[in-house]
Amino acid sequence: MARPSKLGDDEIRERLERLSGWKVVDGKLHRSFRFKNFAHAFGFMTSLALVAEGLDHHPDWSNVYNRVVIDLSTHDAGGITELDFKFAEAANRLYD
Amino acid sequence: MARPSKLGDDEIRERLERLSGWKVVDGKLHRSFRFKNFAHAFGFMTSLALVAEGLDHHPDWSNVYNRVVIDLSTHDAGGITELDFKFAEAANRLYD
Amino acid sequence: MARPSKLGDDEIRERLERLSGWKVVDGKLHRSFRFKNFAHAFGFMTSLALVAEGLDHHPDWSNVYNRVVIDLSTHDAGGITELDFKFAEAANRLYD
Amino acid sequence: MARPSKLGDDEIRERLERLSGWKVVDGKLHRSFRFKNFAHAFGFMTSLALVAEGLDHHPDWSNVYNRVVIDLSTHDAGGITELDFKFAEAANRLYD
Repeated sequence: MARPSKLGDDEIRERLERLSGWKVVDGKLHRSFRFKNFAHAFGFMTSLALVAEGLDHHPDWSNVYNRVVIDLSTHDAGGITELDFKFAEAANRLYD
Repeated sequence: MARPSKLGDDEIRERLERLSGWKVVDGKLHRSFRFKNFAHAFGFMTSLALVAEGLDHHPDWSNVYNRVVIDLSTHDAGGITELDFKFAEAANRLYD
Repeated sequence: MARPSKLGDDEIRERLERLSGWKVVDGKLHRSFRFKNFAHAFGFMTSLALVAEGLDHHPDWSNVYNRVVIDLSTHDAGGITELDFKFAEAANRLYD
Repeated sequence: MARPSKLGDDEIRERLERLSGWKVVDGKLHRSFRFKNFAHAFGFMTSLALVAEGLDHHPDWSNVYNRVVIDLSTHDAGGITELDFKFAEAANRLYD
């Protein structure tokens, strides 16, 4: 698969309107998720780890107990790409 | 924690009435779960693996793609115990 | 990626000679793995789940405490294929 | 289990001498782990998540591809405790 190229600011702004909970922080797509407990949080991370491996696109993420914070950008493209939005949408679908 | 003792048939029957989807098969609590895809199925297994480690009570389970089949009994007690129902209830809560 | 086709018995036999611990059982590549405890066993399963999602090829597997049993075949091809050997080799590398 | 109390600086220093790779950063036990790839890194995280649930003691951790960074302290005790060292030792054993 050809790696996608960096999206422009307008395109990012427009797509963010349809992507609940995410915003741009330090040049990355950013969202914080909160769960009932650690078991729920880490199960979510595992499902998303599988999505990441399927997309060959891996997040910058952290966890403390029932919280998961995700930051997304595409290193090769030097910014936010289509792949980051795909990943963010998959995260939202899993969370709902 | 004292390990629980084997439950009698009447008690098992009564508790199963309040436990959606489970039945006794070959002397074990048994249920099959179906998910949207492998990522969802394996995320569920991971959350439940954490529950198992917290209870120090581990399932006999199998997975093929979007299916997870779980069989529960308590080896030390030679049958189905309180711990198996606790695990089954946790599985149902995660699945819902 | 084109899905691989079913391998012949001779080719399977030959490849099994270089694949430690696996044999053919009921028409599938089969191996049982044993670990120090549940945490090690399930960590192995998670790494392998990621490999599975990357290959888009999923195992038939089961776990009880420190044991993981894996059976591999390729449904679409009606037998054992190159993909099953790739998965089996990845499992062995993770186990070592 | 009674929750352990905060360890003194001398005790922490002494115990760190026997704990490969860890140091104190910002009042927490800190170590960075590097793996062959994401599948190995996340498998390690899953095994350690199980250890965490067994100890009922959860890390502050982050991951980017093949890197896992862990910070440990005990919130209730306001510092580093026995539990943090237990967790760190378990992480080292899994990593080796």
